[in-house]
This record gives sequence, structure tokens and C-alpha cells, in this order.
Amino acid sequence: MIKESLKIIPLGGLGEIGKNITAIEYKDEIIVIDCGISFPDEDMYGIDLVIPDIKYLLDNKNKVKGLFLTHGHEDHIGAIPYILKQINIPVYGTKLTIGLVKNKLKEHNMLSKSNLNPIRPGELIKLDELAIEFIRVTHSIAESCALAIHTPIGTVLHTGDFKIDYTPIDGKVMDLNRIAQLGQEGVLLLMADSTNVERAGHSLSEKIIGETLNRIISNAKGRVIVATFASNIHRMQQIADASMIYDRKIVFSGRSMENISNVAMDLGYLHIPEESIIGIEDLNRYPSDKITIITTGSQGEPMAGLSRIAYGSHRHISIEQDDLFIISASPIPGNDKLVSRVINQLYRKGVEVIYEDLEEIHVSGHAYKEELKLIHTLVKPKYFMPVHGEYRHLKHHSDLALKLGMDKSNVFTLETGQVLEISQDKAIATEKVHTGVVFVDGIGVGDVGNIVLRDRRDLARDGMVTIVVAINKETYSIVSGPDIITRGFIYARESENLINKIKDVAKEEIEICLGNNILEWQVLKGRVRKSVEQLLYHKTKRRPSVFPIIMDI
Amino acid sequence: MIKESLKIIPLGGLGEIGKNITAIEYKDEIIVIDCGISFPDEDMYGIDLVIPDIKYLLDNKNKVKGLFLTHGHEDHIGAIPYILKQINIPVYGTKLTIGLVKNKLKEHNMLSKSNLNPIRPGELIKLDELAIEFIRVTHSIAESCALAIHTPIGTVLHTGDFKIDYTPIDGKVMDLNRIAQLGQEGVLLLMADSTNVERAGHSLSEKIIGETLNRIISNAKGRVIVATFASNIHRMQQIADASMIYDRKIVFSGRSMENISNVAMDLGYLHIPEESIIGIEDLNRYPSDKITIITTGSQGEPMAGLSRIAYGSHRHISIEQDDLFIISASPIPGNDKLVSRVINQLYRKGVEVIYEDLEEIHVSGHAYKEELKLIHTLVKPKYFMPVHGEYRHLKHHSDLALKLGMDKSNVFTLETGQVLEISQDKAIATEKVHTGVVFVDGIGVGDVGNIVLRDRRDLARDGMVTIVVAINKETYSIVSGPDIITRGFIYARESENLINKIKDVAKEEIEICLGNNILEWQVLKGRVRKSVEQLLYHKTKRRPSVFPIIMDI
Repeated sequence: MIKESLKIIPLGGLGEIGKNITAIEYKDEIIVIDCGISFPDEDMYGIDLVIPDIKYLLDNKNKVKGLFLTHGHEDHIGAIPYILKQINIPVYGTKLTIGLVKNKLKEHNMLSKSNLNPIRPGELIKLDELAIEFIRVTHSIAESCALAIHTPIGTVLHTGDFKIDYTPIDGKVMDLNRIAQLGQEGVLLLMADSTNVERAGHSLSEKIIGETLNRIISNAKGRVIVATFASNIHRMQQIADASMIYDRKIVFSGRSMENISNVAMDLGYLHIPEESIIGIEDLNRYPSDKITIITTGSQGEPMAGLSRIAYGSHRHISIEQDDLFIISASPIPGNDKLVSRVINQLYRKGVEVIYEDLEEIHVSGHAYKEELKLIHTLVKPKYFMPVHGEYRHLKHHSDLALKLGMDKSNVFTLETGQVLEISQDKAIATEKVHTGVVFVDGIGVGDVGNIVLRDRRDLARDGMVTIVVAINKETYSIVSGPDIITRGFIYARESENLINKIKDVAKEEIEICLGNNILEWQVLKGRVRKSVEQLLYHKTKRRPSVFPIIMDI
Repeated sequence: MIKESLKIIPLGGLGEIGKNITAIEYKDEIIVIDCGISFPDEDMYGIDLVIPDIKYLLDNKNKVKGLFLTHGHEDHIGAIPYILKQINIPVYGTKLTIGLVKNKLKEHNMLSKSNLNPIRPGELIKLDELAIEFIRVTHSIAESCALAIHTPIGTVLHTGDFKIDYTPIDGKVMDLNRIAQLGQEGVLLLMADSTNVERAGHSLSEKIIGETLNRIISNAKGRVIVATFASNIHRMQQIADASMIYDRKIVFSGRSMENISNVAMDLGYLHIPEESIIGIEDLNRYPSDKITIITTGSQGEPMAGLSRIAYGSHRHISIEQDDLFIISASPIPGNDKLVSRVINQLYRKGVEVIYEDLEEIHVSGHAYKEELKLIHTLVKPKYFMPVHGEYRHLKHHSDLALKLGMDKSNVFTLETGQVLEISQDKAIATEKVHTGVVFVDGIGVGDVGNIVLRDRRDLARDGMVTIVVAINKETYSIVSGPDIITRGFIYARESENLINKIKDVAKEEIEICLGNNILEWQVLKGRVRKSVEQLLYHKTKRRPSVFPIIMDI
């Protein structure tokens, strides 16, 4: 029997941070691995979320058999509600991952229509040609898995996000034995997490945070307020454990913190006795040194818990002199200024703040260089394709594979949209498929595109000047105006001269046109725009958006 | 004789990064230390530069005797042209600092009117009551100085920006002996650089970069292209030195790189034989392995040299396969994503890139914790006031002084605008003086204020919707319109329904008003705006800026 070739189709997450989604196709079967969002760049004004364009899946709708989730982070599950609306396929993941997906689907009123399948690490889901095996890994969220996709031409191992933590909080170590066994049997393709490939050595165990927390909390005189990632359930557990030693009650603050802690407790991933948890309304019923608050906002997000407390706009929590704040997280690239702003504000209020630069209060969830070398060495793949990272990370991860002895022709540094096609005797990067970003803004999904964004950037830079004039086409005369409205350009009341100049220039231009029988609206508008733009650039060296509006009366 | 009190008036740079400027006042004399810019925050759309508000100096114009510059970095000299336009005082600084100021003033056509006084480190400038002594320090720009301000009630030591480099490139070590001597004689107040107070240990010497550069350049097969700060003349020297060993010619690329290297060579701070420098037009006359390009753009700035080369938009330099890029700088907080973008792009082009995460290719110019401890210990000041840093840095620097044994009541963690008043027997933080930011946008200085910026932010977030309608007040009827113009909100051609709804709502609201004899423009506009805003929020969950324009015909 001639076996067909296997296609690896990255629809997101390669050469970019976030929106991880990969399709794997063999004959008439496509499986999808993960379905995440990414956060908008700082110049994507007004955009709430970025989700992947899944045209490829829609074009092959009948082939798509299921969505397999490695773990429950937003960049791996965040786009699920948007995607399931377009293509309702079965979803597989560990109990916790599915629990978090449920939460999302509930918010979108989609829960009843969805086909969610919780699995246990170690389980195998068999389709016609493909079989997907979930393998336990360690990461900064509980119940993370690598996926081994068994295909007629060989096994693909996708690590998902992982680190090698020999002492995880839940005691469930990464299933290195199964990975070693797969390596022994032969792995066709390894796809592995590249996030921390630039970091030398081995990541630290989550466990060391517990020791730091313990020491810090033992010395705290008043409340302890810890900001961390809502999804880091093991971190929550450690904060709670250290707090309970000193009879502190635990308060969860922030919507995602409350949601995820509830899901995690319901499903048995977070163990805090009921009597140790209190509602935020009950804060004042306990002395300050018996309180630990776990809050959102570790990235300095202005609307999240930590910032609200710092700036005095939190509904329930106001700063007390003996408060001790702990930021148990790293700023994600791009957020360092926001985080710094909150730290400054807290110090201004006179409270203590402990953060990563001062204490060992956060560890990364992604494998460092030596951990990656271990996985490569155990798996000994025929082909390698780095995933999950900016291009620089993918490049360095490929370099690492080469240094470990792989042949250059077997290593594929590909980006989103580039297809890797593997047949029994070779692998090649073949076609490019359609991929892209879809912007979510308010309740609009995809209705804001690049033109709208370009306009927002233009408006942001120098504001706008609108010129309104009413014309009588029969008498060839201006009936009313020009009137000028500006926003974001200049403070109009203090710039009367310039406003009058704009009026003069617009009027003159229109009168010339009317005098020459030029009545085409587009021409008229174009000439007014150009003259006003020239005037404004000459006078201010700025380029506001100029909008002439001509009414025909 | 009763001595008056001394006032330390920080007009910028405390509790913020950049725009360093401090006034020191005794009786009828005010001296100003430094006069820098800061760069706009990412939400200050369209702003080019931020300069300090110097109302306090203008209100005391007759007292202001001179501007004393610690060194030639933008955050210490960048605002000079704007400030000298308002108050033309003598300027003092080392030869290099004054050379860089000259360059600036030339660009502003102000050179002939300015009073610039180059001094040598060690020199003392005597005024009536105050005497200002320049003391050599080491920093990431040559010829940096601390200032000792000798006053009738004691000596103030302002470190400027510094690190303690025992092996500086020019061999001119920091004058620790003079600082020790001042400490011996008694220092009233120490004001010291807080930038790196959170970093443990001692900063590395600039010299180690030379070793790395040497090794890297010795192995380069093609051109070497180094991006670094244009002001880091010692770095330039080291790059040039390492290049010349291998007979490479040096090319400077980028306006500030050309300007500053010229000033530095003219004044004898940068030593490159004439025959080793070539113009950028002559690049192609030499083999690639005989070329080193030193370029701007180390912060990933989209319009600077490095980005232009990476994206193929540089006028003279296009990428060659054997190029080796070196980014010899750290990303300033907030710039990490930009830098990462350039690195990714260069890797995509298939060239090698070396940056801080991979090699020791940059060192900081600011003292780490142990260096600061040394200065505090040598100076033994009566009072201490941390300067140059965000609030968190100032706070940690104060903590450091306390740990070294200072009394809490003698340590002043102040911010811009807070005055420290020192008399013979005590120091207290007294009044707050007017300070602030002035925005430079194009050729406008100060004409963009907070309202304009707020409008830019509103426009950026969700764009704008303008509604134009012409009314006849006598017939109480709509003559023309409503017409709708949107930008940055929604792609209008694909949203005809919504546009028509806006028209309907606006028309209905106006007709109701006209029917009820409501003709006040403000009321009419307000009601249209409100109804349309409600409609749009309901339909899209967005809040574009809505501008109703009503013309009376």
C-alpha cells in the first residue's frame, strides 16, 4: 500500500507570540492542535483580541475531526469560542483544560452546542488514520500535555508548552519515560516549545517559590496581597499553603482569578479548605494580619485588580499602611513599563512591594536550553520543527538541533502558513496556505481590518480637521461655512489664527473651483484637502487627517 | 552673619525617567544642573519630545546665573535649545558636552546668541555665593562630571550619571580621591544616580566589550554592522579598534552617528586615522570583509539605520548573506518589542545577529549597588536625596542609605517639584513649586496639551463618526443630510446597514427637536451625539467619537 504524505500546517504561533494553532492532515483527516488568541500589538489601537484566520479549516471542513488541546492557557484555548462558531468539532483536553474551555463557552452562550471531551494524560484518542496520545508534561498550568500523533507514516511528537520540573507542586512529574520510549520506537517529527531557547541552563522548579513565599509571609505585619497569573494554579496553591500556616484567610480578587480558582477547586486541582476562603465583602471582618489577597493585575493592566488597588479605585480594597504586595510574575515583553508604573505607585503609597528583581518570586514555565537538549536527545527525531516563538527563538532552536547533530536538511524553521509535507522518505516545505489575523473589537469579529487600523493610527498621530461647507450648485456660491472642527490636532480656542487661515484657504479653493465650473465633488474635496494639508504641514510640521465635507443645498 | 537656607528644586528627573533638571538656589543666585528631554510614553500619541516646564526659572529670571551640565546625553542636554529660547543663560560643561550642545543649537539657529563655556574636569566656576566644581566621573559617554556645589552653608555633591569603571577606555578614571577629600571635609547633601540601585554587585567595565568585539570581528566573514548608541564614543572607539586590527574601514551611518562621531573626532575624544574612515557612498569600493558599519537604531526605532537595513529601505546599505550584525546596546524599558522585531527580521534574511542575550556585548553606564555603597561611604553626607530614577529606584536608593546607617530624618525621597530646604541646622521638604511637561509636536512647543492628547486617544481607540446635516431654521426642516463620515470605526462600505441606522437615528432626533422648537445648537448637537453613541455602543460595544455638525442655511 502506498502511504500518502502527512501535512503539518501551522495556522498560527510560529514566528509570532500567541495564537497557537496547528493543523495536521493525513488523507481525509485533519486534527487541530490548540486554538489560542494573541494580544494586540501596541499599534493595534482599540483592538481587544487577535484570533487566527482559519480559512484553511473552513475550506476543508469535512476533514476536520477534532481539536486537541495541550493546556489551558489563553494563547492555546482563547480563540475556541470564535472558532467553534464557524466549525463545531469535538474538543479534547485534560479535565482542567476542558473546565476552562467550558467557562469560556458559557460566557458566549455556546456550552450546550459544544462537544467537549475530557481525557486523562496517557489516554489515546483513535480516529480513522490518526491516533492522538496525551502525554503528561509540566508547565505553569496544571494538567498540561504533549501530544503524540500516531500516523501511518510515523509519529509526530508535539511538546506543547513545557518545562521539566522534577518537583512539581502536584507531584505529577513529566512522563519522560513515555517520551523516551517513543524515541526508542522512532519519532518522525519533533515539534517543540522554543520560548526559552535563548536561556542557558535549566529552569528552576516551581517549588522554590514556596520557600520564598513562606519566608516573606512569615514576616508580614499586615495583609499580604499577591498578584499573579490567574491560570497558575500551583502558584495559587503555594500562596494559600504559606498563608494558612499563619492562619490567614484567602481572598480571590478579579474576575479571572475567581473563575479559575473556582474551576480548579471544583475539579480538585486546588486544595484549600472551605473555611480558609472568604469573600471579598468579608475582608473587614478579619484582622489585617490574617488576610491574604490573591489578585489579577500582575502585568500592570490598568483595569485589573492590582492597579485598581494601587490607584485607589478598587471597589473593595483600599491600601493599608502595613500591606505587603508581592508581584509573583514576570512582565511579558511590552508590559514592563506598566508593571513599573504600578510598583512606583505602591511605593508612593508607602507600602512594601516585592517583585522579581528583588526576590525569587517567579519562575518561568518554559524549558531552558538544557531541558530542550534532553528532549531532543530522548526523542532523536528524524525531522525537527521548532514551534511556539518569535522567529529568533525558532532560529536558535533549529541551531540547537544542528549542534546536537541533526542534519540541516532535516530541520525546518518555518513560519505560520508554511506547510511541511512529510512522506515516507523525505520532508519538504511545500505550499503556503492562507493564514492571518482576525481582530476582535467589542462585539465585532473581523469587521475592523487594516484600513480601519491605519485610519486609527493616522487619527492618533496628529488628530483630525473637518471642514464643512454648503454650496448651492445652481448659483455657484457658498451658502454656509466653511466651518472647522478639529480634535486631537491643536487646541482650537488658542489657535484662532490658524483656524481662520484654514477657513480662508478652503474658501479660496472652493471659489476657484466654482469660478472654473469644477463641480465634481471628488475633485472639489481633493483640492480642498490638499491645500489645507499643505497649509497645516507648513505651519505646524504635522499631518492631521483632513476631511472636507461639501453639502449641496 | 545669619546664613540663609539653601533650596534644592528638582524641576524634572525625580520619580520619572528623563528630563533631568534641578535648580539650586541660595539668596539671589540660582544655578541649574542639566536640562534634558524625555521620550513620550506610548500613549502620548504623535508627540516627538517631552521637555520640562521651567516656569519656576522664568518667575525668577534675574536670579538664574548659569546652566551646569554633567554630561552630554539627551536626557541631560536635549531640552537646551527650547529652554535657552526662554532664558538665555551661560552654559558650562566639558568640551565634549559643549560640543554636542553646539550641534543642537546650530540646528535651531541659535548658536551665535548662546554663551557656551567649555571647562575642564577639576575646574571651579565661582559665582557670588555659589561655586561649582566639576569632578571627573566615568559613564557611558566621555567627559562626564559630578558637580560639587560649594555654598555658604556647605557642599552639595551631585553625582550626575556615573558608574565606577576602573579601566575606562580613555584611561581617565573617576576622581574618587577628590570625592573622598570632599567627604573628609564634610558634605552637606549628596544627590546620587539611582538608575541601577536594584542591581546587585558592581557594573562591568566598558573594557570587556572590547574583548568580545575582538573575538567576534576576528571570525566575521563579511561586513560587520554594529548598532549602538550614537553618544557612546568609547564603544565607537572599541568597535573601530577591533575593526582596524583586521584592516576594516569604518563607515558611520545615521545622522546622529555621523554628527557625534565628527564632534568627538574634532575634539580629540575619538581616535580613528583618517584613512580608516570611508563615506557610505564608497562602501562598494571595498570587499565586504574589509568593512565595519557603525549605525543608529540599536533601540529598534523604525526610522533609524538598523531597521532600515533589516527591512530593505536603507538608501545605501542592503543586506549581504555574510553580514554579521551586532546590537551593542540594551533595549531601554518599553523598546524590547521593537528590538525583537528587528532581530527577527534580520534572522529571516538569513544573516547572523549577536545581541545582549547571546554575548557580553553591552554594559550599563550606571552604578550598581556596591558602587553606590562606595560613594555613600566616601562622601558620608549629612543629608541624602536620591536622584535620576523612577520612584521605585529612589525608594530603594533611600533604603540603601538607611542600611548604611543614615538617619531616616536625613534622607529625602522627593519627586519632581518638591523643594528641599536646608538651613544650617536642619533640612526639610517644604513647598511644591510648579513643574510639568511641555510637549513638542512638529514645530509646536506646548500647543498640544492634555485635552488634545485625550482626543487623540479617543480617536485612536474606536475612530470617529461625523454626522452632517443642514437645517433651515425658518422652515424648521432638514435641507440636506444627514451625511455620515467615519474613519477608524468600521469599514463603511461593508456596514451600510449600520450607516443607515445612524442616519435614521440622527434624523429622528433632529426632527423631534425641530418639532418641539428646540433650536439651540448645543442642545441639538448634544441630543444627536447621545442617541448615536447609544446606538453604536449597543450595536458594536465600541465608543467612537461622535461629532454632529449642524449647518444653518
